[in-house]
Amino acid sequence: MSPINDIFDELNADLAPGQEKRLNFDEIELKGGHLPGETVDFSHGDVDAFEPIPEALDNFNHGYKEIGAAQAYTVYRGREDIRLDVAEKLSSFSGTAIDYENELIITPGTQGALFLAAGAMITPGDKVAIIEPDYYANRKLVHFFRGELYPVTLDYMGHGDKAGIDLKQLEDGFKDGVSTFIFSNPNNPSGVVYSKGEITEIGRLIKKYDVNVIVDELYSRQVFDGRIFTHLSSLNIVPRENIITIIGPSKTESLSGFRLGVAYGAKAIIDRMEQLQAIVSLRAGGYSQIVLKNWFNEPDHWMIERIEAHREIRNELLRLFREADFEVRTTEAGSYIFPRLPGLSIDCENFAKILNKQAKVIVTPGTQFGPGFKDSIRLNFSQDKEKAVDAVKRLIKVAGFYKVE
Amino acid sequence: MSPINDIFDELNADLAPGQEKRLNFDEIELKGGHLPGETVDFSHGDVDAFEPIPEALDNFNHGYKEIGAAQAYTVYRGREDIRLDVAEKLSSFSGTAIDYENELIITPGTQGALFLAAGAMITPGDKVAIIEPDYYANRKLVHFFRGELYPVTLDYMGHGDKAGIDLKQLEDGFKDGVSTFIFSNPNNPSGVVYSKGEITEIGRLIKKYDVNVIVDELYSRQVFDGRIFTHLSSLNIVPRENIITIIGPSKTESLSGFRLGVAYGAKAIIDRMEQLQAIVSLRAGGYSQIVLKNWFNEPDHWMIERIEAHREIRNELLRLFREADFEVRTTEAGSYIFPRLPGLSIDCENFAKILNKQAKVIVTPGTQFGPGFKDSIRLNFSQDKEKAVDAVKRLIKVAGFYKVE
Repeated sequence: MSPINDIFDELNADLAPGQEKRLNFDEIELKGGHLPGETVDFSHGDVDAFEPIPEALDNFNHGYKEIGAAQAYTVYRGREDIRLDVAEKLSSFSGTAIDYENELIITPGTQGALFLAAGAMITPGDKVAIIEPDYYANRKLVHFFRGELYPVTLDYMGHGDKAGIDLKQLEDGFKDGVSTFIFSNPNNPSGVVYSKGEITEIGRLIKKYDVNVIVDELYSRQVFDGRIFTHLSSLNIVPRENIITIIGPSKTESLSGFRLGVAYGAKAIIDRMEQLQAIVSLRAGGYSQIVLKNWFNEPDHWMIERIEAHREIRNELLRLFREADFEVRTTEAGSYIFPRLPGLSIDCENFAKILNKQAKVIVTPGTQFGPGFKDSIRLNFSQDKEKAVDAVKRLIKVAGFYKVE
Repeated sequence: MSPINDIFDELNADLAPGQEKRLNFDEIELKGGHLPGETVDFSHGDVDAFEPIPEALDNFNHGYKEIGAAQAYTVYRGREDIRLDVAEKLSSFSGTAIDYENELIITPGTQGALFLAAGAMITPGDKVAIIEPDYYANRKLVHFFRGELYPVTLDYMGHGDKAGIDLKQLEDGFKDGVSTFIFSNPNNPSGVVYSKGEITEIGRLIKKYDVNVIVDELYSRQVFDGRIFTHLSSLNIVPRENIITIIGPSKTESLSGFRLGVAYGAKAIIDRMEQLQAIVSLRAGGYSQIVLKNWFNEPDHWMIERIEAHREIRNELLRLFREADFEVRTTEAGSYIFPRLPGLSIDCENFAKILNKQAKVIVTPGTQFGPGFKDSIRLNFSQDKEKAVDAVKRLIKVAGFYKVE
């Protein structure tokens, strides 16, 4: 097999969230019957149930009609006045000084930011530390840029006060020559938030071993139950030239259809990310960029009500899963839950396929987040509550059909 | 210097089209005075002068309001009904059968398509043939994917009936182990169209030496003076598994602000491109995708009138340049002209900086299209005619200040 086949075998996206429509189900043998009900796609949030920030579309139309060419063609890192506005808002939110001219880039989604940051840091053969479980693209990016994965365990089921990162393992990796560390906080898929102690220690290790870090804080605005969220960049432990933070309005704010993300941090890395963006996609969609002005600028109470509505759905789904003996950690931030399937005769990948076929419920198999999570599934509970509850009841029934006695 | 610095030095985008706003001019010594007049940016087309396809924005709003979540989250290769529509239109336009399910992907701009196609074909050390001059990103993509450039000369000033590709050089490269060939037709920056004879011979050589080809036909709808345009894919010489064609609505149709492009061709390569898109930016902007329904579906006469208006601007600018002893080939398709500066004391990169400073006229230096084009500049003449004429007069005056006596 040629090297390019090897690389693309690792990138296989057939089981990735949102790609389920392209799966082939023919070979699976079903037990139990079909369960009627509306299709619910837990692979991502439902922006019909939780709609985009009000007036986002109006602002897009304004950009097209009133600003026109200057909005269509921006410099590759994004239109200056929008970078200025976003840098101010993110400085305030994250407790981190951000120079809009040199330290921030607007990208096509946070996926775009992650790709550019990884491409600006990783060269073939580099050791890259990632968390298991963590966002599926992190490991794929390392493969694509021909780095070497160094997995670090997150014992997310264990601790009420910590996320559960194995700091000893992380330091061993850093001693062993890891040059880049990529992780999400809140963790995707488990929904746990790293404690201030954990973030402080991560920062200290990054500084001590001169590692570059990409921290993906995509879900950091939607925090439940008064949990404290600590922005790694705000601690001023990691040197400015070693850190890139990623965030965007695709999740909590439901603006995913506009494909917008932001990265901020080290000037030299942001410069490289822009050079890379010039050959990847030129810029985030010109007219879309202006929608960032609506971000962190939502109507009064909009964010509070949204978080409360998500908290209620979370509570109800956790209750159902626990009643049915699925082990699950309580989501501390974001919209994901990551339950363990209770002793089934099939693994999570086949369960996901079967569930889709038998009950029209779409979930993401745990193996997308690390090879060890064969007994877990991820659900994004940013859904219509009634439909989500009914779908999880069907999910639990289907699991019952395949239980090992 | 570390390898990643080497890679990013080659990607330097400071002189790339659209990035001029971020240049530093301090070190340049000026001759002659400032020339008053409105800023004209010839680095790209002016979508205020030539507006997007009517109803494109209405359709975007329809996608957001009426389709909602299904439009925001599509499979990575793009929403099925849009792929079906686009495949039918492009099949008819290009004379090539396209299977919408397997042979077509929607990307964030044609830049996105080019990046994904190159990433799906090139592995480190591969020899990649490119044309000089040709679109600046082609060579940068080869550098980024650590391929080895094999440049092929296009003698674009020479021939009325041919584009001027050196087919002997191309075959020598193929014999020498070139595995991928990337070129634009119509050629960017010169605006020449490859003859049917040239395309046929290119196809024959690709087949004979089993090379992969990416042909960028971005400007192939805007053809002047009855010039015949030959789609490489339509000749059925190149095996289906070896060819990817790229096209999009960003130029002639002025939809660049929506960031939309399309690639069609080899199933196995389209599959890889989708796997890569999954980690690069997930998908082209969801709501934007629906705007592709307006493409190839413009009001009667819209396209004919647009081409005629561009032909008139082209003719006027060519006349001005030739009167002032700038050598220039007549554009056969697209909106670019690529004149040679007549014997100046400065090279094109400094001329571009000076011109911007002294006369507020932005052009792209020839060195973006190949290291040998130190005496050339590229202009996109999709502009307000009156302003463009005035700006070219200023350009000619500024050139006069720096003429070698």
